[in-house]
Amino acid sequence: MDKKLSILVSNDDGIFSDGLAALVKELQTIADVTIVAPDSQQSAVGHAITMHRPLRMREMKKEGVFFGYALDGTPADCVKLAIRNIMKQKPDLVISGINHGSNTAISVIYSGTVSAATEGTILGIPSFAVSLTTFEPNPDFTYAAKFAKQLALKIVHHGLPNGTLLNVNVPPVPENEINGVVVTKQGKSVWNDEFESRRDPGNKQYFWLKGELVELDEEEDIDQRAILNNKVSVTPIHFDLTNYAMLEDLRSWNLTP
Amino acid sequence: MDKKLSILVSNDDGIFSDGLAALVKELQTIADVTIVAPDSQQSAVGHAITMHRPLRMREMKKEGVFFGYALDGTPADCVKLAIRNIMKQKPDLVISGINHGSNTAISVIYSGTVSAATEGTILGIPSFAVSLTTFEPNPDFTYAAKFAKQLALKIVHHGLPNGTLLNVNVPPVPENEINGVVVTKQGKSVWNDEFESRRDPGNKQYFWLKGELVELDEEEDIDQRAILNNKVSVTPIHFDLTNYAMLEDLRSWNLTP
Repeated sequence: MDKKLSILVSNDDGIFSDGLAALVKELQTIADVTIVAPDSQQSAVGHAITMHRPLRMREMKKEGVFFGYALDGTPADCVKLAIRNIMKQKPDLVISGINHGSNTAISVIYSGTVSAATEGTILGIPSFAVSLTTFEPNPDFTYAAKFAKQLALKIVHHGLPNGTLLNVNVPPVPENEINGVVVTKQGKSVWNDEFESRRDPGNKQYFWLKGELVELDEEEDIDQRAILNNKVSVTPIHFDLTNYAMLEDLRSWNLTP
Repeated sequence: MDKKLSILVSNDDGIFSDGLAALVKELQTIADVTIVAPDSQQSAVGHAITMHRPLRMREMKKEGVFFGYALDGTPADCVKLAIRNIMKQKPDLVISGINHGSNTAISVIYSGTVSAATEGTILGIPSFAVSLTTFEPNPDFTYAAKFAKQLALKIVHHGLPNGTLLNVNVPPVPENEINGVVVTKQGKSVWNDEFESRRDPGNKQYFWLKGELVELDEEEDIDQRAILNNKVSVTPIHFDLTNYAMLEDLRSWNLTP
């Protein structure tokens, strides 16, 4: 008899987000699911970890039943604490999401959702992040959750290379409008952003970030472009940031002063 | 007559850190230096940006003279605000540091220091991060600052490819013990870390992160290894996280459910 899968779920939207609930509901049909997630919204925290203050954890109930662990830390903290301290055995998979909003192009490096999956990968566990690419309130996470479950089973079958995770983005359309699944590269779109200067009621200045993602990519196999075509985007990413293409050139610079 | 260089300096140790002061002092011999840095320690914040609360900025003096702008945000926030809102013209370079402590191997993705330089690169400005690889109190930043100045001039001369920055680590030894400069790859060492469980005075549990970097790399041209050999390490890094080597394999997975 096959051992039941064990899956750790985290996110950056917080333990009581609808995207996490939809994901957990689907995954519970194939696995024992452990939930360790932030106790509050942690978007755009990047790969932050908490070193300079202690962390507090609470056991959270939902409808009267134990649901998961809420941590006053970042998504990466959650995955580290889950695997190092909470779970008796390493899980078979770490899944982060479902994020409410896209994590494509340059946003990948700001993403708390991706960060949780990255931490799983660092700790040697096959991991992926999944996001629904809409900022509309109360979107339908049903198809994204179903896709995540199927991808989880494929990853258990194929495995993932050491140090590599998958970054999945699902368009916010019903299943019958999905135009398929495409393996993509991270796009090069950037944010055209700035801090809006405002005055508080005491006439003191403050700044608030605003902006929009600027479309730069023309190729079809780019994360952002797949979404525009109502395709699910699956990008293999890693955390070796070395730009190998520049090594030779840089060696010719004669860097020794 | 050559126009004087304009350099933006930030860091993650905070605006009044000794490493930043040493860097600024050297750079002022070749450039107009603008300082926008966090008002407090921001280590291990990764590439976090602040979206869900307003930011406050203060003009800081040092010895009675205007020194720079302190922001209650992350290193990436500082660079974004500096370039988008504070500086009248884009600087010629963004330099982040000098960090007190190494930023090698997996630490690169947790690093606030690297994040500030990454944000400069995203905004189209040649950028680098520089760290002194010791956690001893009150280290001597003199040689690291001198190296940073010389590297700044080389970058102005050669330029950097779009989307690429340099991550520099300097060993904490006097200049005459430096064994040269080596162009490196990001190492694969990881943290063997865990959260230590403790009890507060009210007997409530809390967790505090502790750990050490585990040496995995044998090759000579790895950041961590260069430092052990008392060489300055210069790694070209980028923020395209795509694992190109896995694209073909993943396409064979038949991902469409």
